[in-house]
Amino acid sequence: MKKRFLLAGLALALGTGYTLTAFSQVKPEVLVKQRQAAMTLQGKYFGPLAGMAQGKVPYDAGVVAYNASLLDALSRMPWDGFAESTKGEKATRALPAVYADPAKFKQAQDQLHTAVGALGAAAKGGNEAAVKAAVGDVNKACGNCHDNFREKQ
Amino acid sequence: MKKRFLLAGLALALGTGYTLTAFSQVKPEVLVKQRQAAMTLQGKYFGPLAGMAQGKVPYDAGVVAYNASLLDALSRMPWDGFAESTKGEKATRALPAVYADPAKFKQAQDQLHTAVGALGAAAKGGNEAAVKAAVGDVNKACGNCHDNFREKQ
Repeated sequence: MKKRFLLAGLALALGTGYTLTAFSQVKPEVLVKQRQAAMTLQGKYFGPLAGMAQGKVPYDAGVVAYNASLLDALSRMPWDGFAESTKGEKATRALPAVYADPAKFKQAQDQLHTAVGALGAAAKGGNEAAVKAAVGDVNKACGNCHDNFREKQ
Repeated sequence: MKKRFLLAGLALALGTGYTLTAFSQVKPEVLVKQRQAAMTLQGKYFGPLAGMAQGKVPYDAGVVAYNASLLDALSRMPWDGFAESTKGEKATRALPAVYADPAKFKQAQDQLHTAVGALGAAAKGGNEAAVKAAVGDVNKACGNCHDNFREKQ
């Protein structure tokens, strides 16, 4: 039983993707699912921070620090999923600009990394106003990328 | 335009969940989507390591270290999504044991955390055999939890 799982688990794992080294081997629909999963989780951990910045959720420095550290990891995850092979996929709102202007797309990713890094630093600093400003900058980075690279709904 | 996004983005973010502080306010189907997203990404970053441990993917110490650090973050993400409110959800293979035996479920989560932590330490140590053994332990932790808390397909 244990052994059966081990093998089944491995096959499953191998089916989901070779990160960094050879992601072109991963099926396009899997790449889309993975990058959307990263977006879903960025929403999960950014949501409460956006609420705090707007005064709709009580400010909690511990949650800010924790979520900022998870966002640091998550903000690295979506991008290798935007492989050329996913161009024709239906279940995505990615615009052709993702592939037509990779330099600008990379710039938008970098803007997010920078903003998330600054949020982490602000969270360590412990100044609530600075944290809220940093949350605003992360939100702007999300918005900038969505405006240019994601289809409007 | 910027401002419109800011508000729309905020509404979206708030819709996706209040992490840690008040997750019971998040819709059950959103919690399921978020926890499944975490599983999807654990598969993405564990897959290549499982492949290396089996000799099916060339060993790459850099990928091991990078993926291990992301797995450290990801392995913290699924669990608060298994709220009581998600018991009746259809689009999930979570077994009733998740809710009937929370102590055992927590133990299974802890086993994963421990194994992922040991993998990160092994990656820093740089001993290939130790890394591969640590990958095997992570795989066992995944399997143990799936065996007990996830419906067979």
